[in-house]
Amino acid sequence: MTTETTERVLAPLEAALPELEALYVDLHRHPELAFTETRTAAELARRLTEDGFEVHTGIGRTGVVGVLRNGEGPTVLLRADIDALPVEEQTGLSYASTARGVDSEGRDVPLMHACGHDMHATWLSGAAHLLAASRDEWSGTLLALFQPGEEAGDGAAGMVRDGLFERVGRPDVVFGQHIVPGPAGWVLTRPGVIMAATDTLRITLHGRGGHGSRPETTVDPAVLAASVVLKLQTIVSRETAATEPAVVTVGSMHVGTAANVIADHAVLEVNTRAFDDAVLVRLRKAIERIVNGEAAAAGAPQPPTVEVVASYPVTANDAAASDELTEVFRGHFGAEATMPAPLVTGSEDFSEFGRAAGVPSVFWLVGGFDAQQVITAMTEGRFETDVPSNHSSKFAPVLHPTLRTGVETLVVAALSRFARPGVAEGR
Amino acid sequence: MTTETTERVLAPLEAALPELEALYVDLHRHPELAFTETRTAAELARRLTEDGFEVHTGIGRTGVVGVLRNGEGPTVLLRADIDALPVEEQTGLSYASTARGVDSEGRDVPLMHACGHDMHATWLSGAAHLLAASRDEWSGTLLALFQPGEEAGDGAAGMVRDGLFERVGRPDVVFGQHIVPGPAGWVLTRPGVIMAATDTLRITLHGRGGHGSRPETTVDPAVLAASVVLKLQTIVSRETAATEPAVVTVGSMHVGTAANVIADHAVLEVNTRAFDDAVLVRLRKAIERIVNGEAAAAGAPQPPTVEVVASYPVTANDAAASDELTEVFRGHFGAEATMPAPLVTGSEDFSEFGRAAGVPSVFWLVGGFDAQQVITAMTEGRFETDVPSNHSSKFAPVLHPTLRTGVETLVVAALSRFARPGVAEGR
Amino acid sequence: MTTETTERVLAPLEAALPELEALYVDLHRHPELAFTETRTAAELARRLTEDGFEVHTGIGRTGVVGVLRNGEGPTVLLRADIDALPVEEQTGLSYASTARGVDSEGRDVPLMHACGHDMHATWLSGAAHLLAASRDEWSGTLLALFQPGEEAGDGAAGMVRDGLFERVGRPDVVFGQHIVPGPAGWVLTRPGVIMAATDTLRITLHGRGGHGSRPETTVDPAVLAASVVLKLQTIVSRETAATEPAVVTVGSMHVGTAANVIADHAVLEVNTRAFDDAVLVRLRKAIERIVNGEAAAAGAPQPPTVEVVASYPVTANDAAASDELTEVFRGHFGAEATMPAPLVTGSEDFSEFGRAAGVPSVFWLVGGFDAQQVITAMTEGRFETDVPSNHSSKFAPVLHPTLRTGVETLVVAALSRFARPGVAEGR
Amino acid sequence: MTTETTERVLAPLEAALPELEALYVDLHRHPELAFTETRTAAELARRLTEDGFEVHTGIGRTGVVGVLRNGEGPTVLLRADIDALPVEEQTGLSYASTARGVDSEGRDVPLMHACGHDMHATWLSGAAHLLAASRDEWSGTLLALFQPGEEAGDGAAGMVRDGLFERVGRPDVVFGQHIVPGPAGWVLTRPGVIMAATDTLRITLHGRGGHGSRPETTVDPAVLAASVVLKLQTIVSRETAATEPAVVTVGSMHVGTAANVIADHAVLEVNTRAFDDAVLVRLRKAIERIVNGEAAAAGAPQPPTVEVVASYPVTANDAAASDELTEVFRGHFGAEATMPAPLVTGSEDFSEFGRAAGVPSVFWLVGGFDAQQVITAMTEGRFETDVPSNHSSKFAPVLHPTLRTGVETLVVAALSRFARPGVAEGR
Repeated sequence: MTTETTERVLAPLEAALPELEALYVDLHRHPELAFTETRTAAELARRLTEDGFEVHTGIGRTGVVGVLRNGEGPTVLLRADIDALPVEEQTGLSYASTARGVDSEGRDVPLMHACGHDMHATWLSGAAHLLAASRDEWSGTLLALFQPGEEAGDGAAGMVRDGLFERVGRPDVVFGQHIVPGPAGWVLTRPGVIMAATDTLRITLHGRGGHGSRPETTVDPAVLAASVVLKLQTIVSRETAATEPAVVTVGSMHVGTAANVIADHAVLEVNTRAFDDAVLVRLRKAIERIVNGEAAAAGAPQPPTVEVVASYPVTANDAAASDELTEVFRGHFGAEATMPAPLVTGSEDFSEFGRAAGVPSVFWLVGGFDAQQVITAMTEGRFETDVPSNHSSKFAPVLHPTLRTGVETLVVAALSRFARPGVAEGR
Repeated sequence: MTTETTERVLAPLEAALPELEALYVDLHRHPELAFTETRTAAELARRLTEDGFEVHTGIGRTGVVGVLRNGEGPTVLLRADIDALPVEEQTGLSYASTARGVDSEGRDVPLMHACGHDMHATWLSGAAHLLAASRDEWSGTLLALFQPGEEAGDGAAGMVRDGLFERVGRPDVVFGQHIVPGPAGWVLTRPGVIMAATDTLRITLHGRGGHGSRPETTVDPAVLAASVVLKLQTIVSRETAATEPAVVTVGSMHVGTAANVIADHAVLEVNTRAFDDAVLVRLRKAIERIVNGEAAAAGAPQPPTVEVVASYPVTANDAAASDELTEVFRGHFGAEATMPAPLVTGSEDFSEFGRAAGVPSVFWLVGGFDAQQVITAMTEGRFETDVPSNHSSKFAPVLHPTLRTGVETLVVAALSRFARPGVAEGR
Repeated sequence: MTTETTERVLAPLEAALPELEALYVDLHRHPELAFTETRTAAELARRLTEDGFEVHTGIGRTGVVGVLRNGEGPTVLLRADIDALPVEEQTGLSYASTARGVDSEGRDVPLMHACGHDMHATWLSGAAHLLAASRDEWSGTLLALFQPGEEAGDGAAGMVRDGLFERVGRPDVVFGQHIVPGPAGWVLTRPGVIMAATDTLRITLHGRGGHGSRPETTVDPAVLAASVVLKLQTIVSRETAATEPAVVTVGSMHVGTAANVIADHAVLEVNTRAFDDAVLVRLRKAIERIVNGEAAAAGAPQPPTVEVVASYPVTANDAAASDELTEVFRGHFGAEATMPAPLVTGSEDFSEFGRAAGVPSVFWLVGGFDAQQVITAMTEGRFETDVPSNHSSKFAPVLHPTLRTGVETLVVAALSRFARPGVAEGR
Repeated sequence: MTTETTERVLAPLEAALPELEALYVDLHRHPELAFTETRTAAELARRLTEDGFEVHTGIGRTGVVGVLRNGEGPTVLLRADIDALPVEEQTGLSYASTARGVDSEGRDVPLMHACGHDMHATWLSGAAHLLAASRDEWSGTLLALFQPGEEAGDGAAGMVRDGLFERVGRPDVVFGQHIVPGPAGWVLTRPGVIMAATDTLRITLHGRGGHGSRPETTVDPAVLAASVVLKLQTIVSRETAATEPAVVTVGSMHVGTAANVIADHAVLEVNTRAFDDAVLVRLRKAIERIVNGEAAAAGAPQPPTVEVVASYPVTANDAAASDELTEVFRGHFGAEATMPAPLVTGSEDFSEFGRAAGVPSVFWLVGGFDAQQVITAMTEGRFETDVPSNHSSKFAPVLHPTLRTGVETLVVAALSRFARPGVAEGR
């Protein structure tokens, strides 16, 4: 597609920004946990319907897909994820979330869009609106996909299993993006592996309960859990080569309900990361070896239970598609705002769509923070401490130009694949 | 009082047992956490009223006291505690609790009478009934006191602060008892210190949150908590003489809500025990030193917060009153069922009543488990593993003769102090 | 024996003190490790010979026994141990040791009489001298036994195995004593168990060595050892009742020889204490369980090796003999200087002699520090920090009246058993 | 230089191999620790002298440099290191070392050439011999430098400080090489950073000593050391990004000398690695923070002492010189045996020579193990476990073709820089 086409499609964006900002603020104020995104899904479906999409809801529980069949040409899937996290917002924003919800363990937890999925959803809603409003400019089929449960695992796979492609058709290419703590206005990507593979494990350590004053009648699961957490550190520090990236994080640990009662079990939720699926398997085996050894050392009445709650492979970009798209981004945003992405230890189930469909996919990152502040912090070595990362309770993207950039990336990417009207073969 | 008097007062007990068993089962099925014992308190108040007591409710929030003024003579306070614990019952009993409640942190928790306070309440209700039904046999004033919040701290002190003695009068002696995993039918006591002093501390370890895949941007509170728990073990293993009893238990540890989010804090609930109030102070200082040092080692953004949630001094029996009562018990139960109590690492706020009133108090233990099984387990060295201790999810007293024994102890103790009718000066 | 006899026997003690002080200083300056006490043994044997004893050397490697057959009557064995420790003296004394030696592992180590065996030997040498010089005053056989290798284990048992009683005859009673950080001039004892049972274990943890920069090719024994040491703390803190004394100490831990080489094994020397032989067995089993579990958790190529280097049962005093001797000490030293001993967590192989001979034995403690300082430190709660304990590098007894007291205790104890001259049947 | 020249210079190598093998076996059997390499230095100096070099000994204590002034042309420094390690050899080789020595702490330790410096010395001795025997073929000055103390730090810097360049002249380029567990016959290099920066720290943790049975009078340095070792793991596992290589190894840990004595200090030797000098500084600060925090948590009487024993910056190859040499190696060994080197977490002080002289330097790696076995192990994922790494007690290079390859690399590299005879300007 020509630059002129792109300019025409994007022309109404400036005027649409207040409306998109309102959508973003509304989503931010009403975060919903994985697979409970009913309010979010309803609002996004409503907008797709208004824009003339054929709308499919409830795919993979709370997923929404809008289909816009606009003549001959390639089918482009644009994907955004929509779920929030059990984090207590501490941004101090006027539109900060005060919402609470019930997690999958039945716990009452605070909620926050601490990973920016509210921005992802707003971007895609905006891009869908612009593309729907400019059907004369392109030819093909647009799939605007809002995926639930990215944080919980099984969001993408669940949609595929639930008949996604049978219902809405199979795409020719899949595009997705993520907001990161980089300079607003920047777009970053790379060919090949871009994000890590990850396992989420739920480990139950079995002890023997009793009165807090008589530990000798018990096997104390708090002490067992503590020892496990410290020994798990050695997987990265001792069992992994320095040049081989790996992460083992115990994100949650819960033992007992009273100071003077020794509980009979502890529950750890563990998340691992690697840029190689084989390494991930090795991490899992090391975890199992450690928890079993520690339970034996503690004299536990039974071995620990290790459940794989979720497992994502690496997010890998098709090399040719990635290189091509990078050129398109450079043309649109300029080379100074189109950067090579670093390896990101975060994980995604985005790749699931391309893998399941057997088609190329490309994932990129969009900066969402004050460019001056981010660059100064990087230069002065304060980036890690001063710029809140994804999942932080202080994760607070700036709205401008962030809102605009993420809409433009999706539009530009889609247009790079669509055919010109009346030119069926597309690219 | 003569043995004949005692026999007459206790004569209706056999027939009353089915009713007491029903009360026990009902209380067991409906456990209530500290200071929320409204159903329990209402039922116990109802019975006191039926028995002709002047009933005071809502003392120290949910406390109940029945007053029976029965002529000249000493005032005897019999005390039972009534609150349950956040433990999930695993006894397999037909009347096992399936109740849940909300703890002081707002957490939804399972509930169980895992410390036998349901038995304590039943015993006192039964003894109050028998003494009320035999007013001709004794002279004096009986205070039947049902105390809330023993597990949470401040139950006894709260009743005193709330004007207990101003409302119901000041006792001349205070008696109390606790069910223990000893042979049913046995009564155990000792002069001087019988139960431990205890602190309950709530420790908040402050970290810095972030994404689970980027630990380098965080200070991980799960790792900090784990290190603290292991280092706390050294207070007993290295800082306390082998011959000086002390316990430091981390009963609960809670960090985070998701596997892939590093939380910004951890909360530990710690319970300590010693048989000397000075040692308790030393334990507290060691805990503070350790958590501060560990937070510094971890690079925590702020020092830990250590709150003293509850603090009980030692439970100490007045030596003369204890010796005298032991003789009375020997006369009633026989020497073979009246045993010297060991030092019990459990704690109690029972002593608060005698201390506040400036009068002697005596506390004793009553066995509640199958005598044959307990003795065999002791003999074969399997007591610790085979007999569930107080606070265990498997704590399941046998009803007979346990119900009977604990009623008899209270009646016998009270009668040992009351005057004969018409003989005002009493003992 | 009468007080007059005792006074006559002890009369030369005052004049002998400079000579005894010189002996003590000489022994203190020349400490020798277990079973290498050749210089010490030669000097003590020389003195016995001078005093007219029949001298047996080389019993149980470096043990020395002087036999003085002085007519009819009981045979009294007085025992002192003579070995030093691998500790670097930091007392600042003018006669501080600067000696070094080679330990059983071939390591070059500093040497110090940090447990006061130099005082024990001096006491017994002095008592032997006085008793030899006053043969007219008593009748019987005196065995003055200098035992090697008390610190290493097997010192007493080794002498017995080496034919001790066959060579020197069987005693009717065995006496021994130990210097402790109590007030000089005080004697402390108790019937029954007085000192702990103890195990000394040598644990080899097997890892896999390699370059320090490539831990992923190794199983790091330093990390394994660290985890084991922390987990061993839980045996006392979690597996032992608060009222049951027990100690588990890792006295030495050695891993590796260079910063940048990961070693292939670690060696821990562990010492345990309990006042009940069955508890000691339980501690040993817990240690084995923990080291095996930790090795499994670490992925160790083979299970740890646990060797029992030494094992002493409890030191227990014959109740009747102890009570009788306590009365004798009270008569001699006064009640204010004859105190009940606390349970001492230290251990001894002294009991081996009485056990092997099938006769009563009594062991007592003698204070060796400035009385004013010790009592002030106790009163002000600074005893633990201000008074160096046995095995401390600052263990520095005051010479007076310590030297005198320990000679008197042995003489008084022996005389309490000997017959009067011409009265063969003794007591 | 032409290939023909190279062939002529290398022609005598085949015949010289038995002699070189004998030298290697002799050096292997007689390993010497850093700065005590007197026997090794004497033998190497003897050979240089025989070959007609001007020989300088004792530079930087035990360093040896042979100077061969052979007409106009560049000065090329070829460097080999010669010290061994305190490792007990377990190769089972017929020529395995059984030597022992005394380390810098006065400890008696086993010795082994576990890092292949015996091979390095043999290679350089062989190359010096060939170049000396072919003076007609090249023009320039050859510096054959045998460096002591590479393992201890300060070997290279010590030679420079001791007037190296003033004594032997300043080179125009510096070449060095290291044997690695890769296929024998392979040469590996890369431009820029090739090996890690490293710190060696010696940490003394101060406790308070005492008797093993009375831990409450002590601050136990074994427990403190254990806690420090586990917490040090978190520097890599939690404080370092997954994509940023770093290593923190506690290579040695020594506490105490007897099971029943609690020592008053512990000594840890820690080695760190990073590929960025700034990261190394961060690691050091984290270590200091952790040891101080842990000492505070333990109630240590004084803060730990942290000494920097050695510190090496990254080993970085001059990009142009490296690229040029890689081409030369490809020409000589073939592309299939000239591989890109991985980032090596090992460290070197080789770069010190080029840095101090202000000239380019290039360092490369030479495989030394059976090619078939190494490649099979790599393919089957058993490389880490099956191929002993440098510093392993089983490090056993194959002699052929290893001996030949490392001589050829040095000769080829030197010739690539020397002028043709009579052509003074060289390259």
